[in-house]
Amino acid sequence: MIPPAPPADRGIALRETVVDSDVRALSEMVLATGFFSPEEVGVAVELVEDRLGRGPTSDYAFLIAERDGRLAGYTCYGRTRGTLASFDLYWIVVAPDEQRHGLGRLLLEETERRIRERGGLRIYVETSSRSLYEPTRQFYLTNGYVQEAFLADYYSPGDGKLIYCRVLGL
Amino acid sequence: MIPPAPPADRGIALRETVVDSDVRALSEMVLATGFFSPEEVGVAVELVEDRLGRGPTSDYAFLIAERDGRLAGYTCYGRTRGTLASFDLYWIVVAPDEQRHGLGRLLLEETERRIRERGGLRIYVETSSRSLYEPTRQFYLTNGYVQEAFLADYYSPGDGKLIYCRVLGL
Repeated sequence: MIPPAPPADRGIALRETVVDSDVRALSEMVLATGFFSPEEVGVAVELVEDRLGRGPTSDYAFLIAERDGRLAGYTCYGRTRGTLASFDLYWIVVAPDEQRHGLGRLLLEETERRIRERGGLRIYVETSSRSLYEPTRQFYLTNGYVQEAFLADYYSPGDGKLIYCRVLGL
Repeated sequence: MIPPAPPADRGIALRETVVDSDVRALSEMVLATGFFSPEEVGVAVELVEDRLGRGPTSDYAFLIAERDGRLAGYTCYGRTRGTLASFDLYWIVVAPDEQRHGLGRLLLEETERRIRERGGLRIYVETSSRSLYEPTRQFYLTNGYVQEAFLADYYSPGDGKLIYCRVLGL
């Protein structure tokens, strides 16, 4: 369903198939970023395992970036159940030594392209209002996402949830 | 962990344990209300099956109301992963012939009591902006929930998502 793989950008290769060794590699990378709690890392692992177990029938699709066979970043996304054409971007993670070189943007654009090809019209992404995530919020705003909601104290007192949305062009 | 079962209100008995026969009974009741799409009914069934399979380790807790051994309504709720003390109320459903007699409110209050006992401080619930759900929205507003977000066109063009929150008193 997906056309030929996009040209690797500056030595980056992308793949959609998840393999057993991703479970450990992805969880180690998620942890290494310092942006996620142990419970969140556990969720990340569960989503990889769900995809491994169910294959394409899983609600969770992956786009994995590698450089020289080594994990550099990934996204996890999927159509939102109960909606006509909305997708959730559940995770977008870039390895610490790969950050600030445009890989996040490449992963985001390639994920959006796949969502558009699957008929998606809206992409939702959530993040925390804590100052740690200010670069994350700027990343979404810079890439065409608009803040649609703020849920105060959602994660914990003083730590609210922001919901961003990007409407995909036809 | 939960104190003695609350007194049944007007012939209603509550239970928290899910049994095999609930899968079919709950899905039939959800469908009979006319408020949910076939895909949503499928999700409801998956949550029951998850609880049956995983027991108390499931992310989905149930509160089931019966009258004379017959299913009258239920809630499905759970702690929101990645949060300190937020809970989601995923489903609250009352059988068509049990509506307008306070069972929804009873189920909601008993669910809130259980969430409070588990340390929950906030309950989130989502619903559609379509006119069909106006009674649902009024039900939440009447029972102390405050609208915190509106995501336009979330479910489909013209059908947005509303997010309500109730902050639980200490």
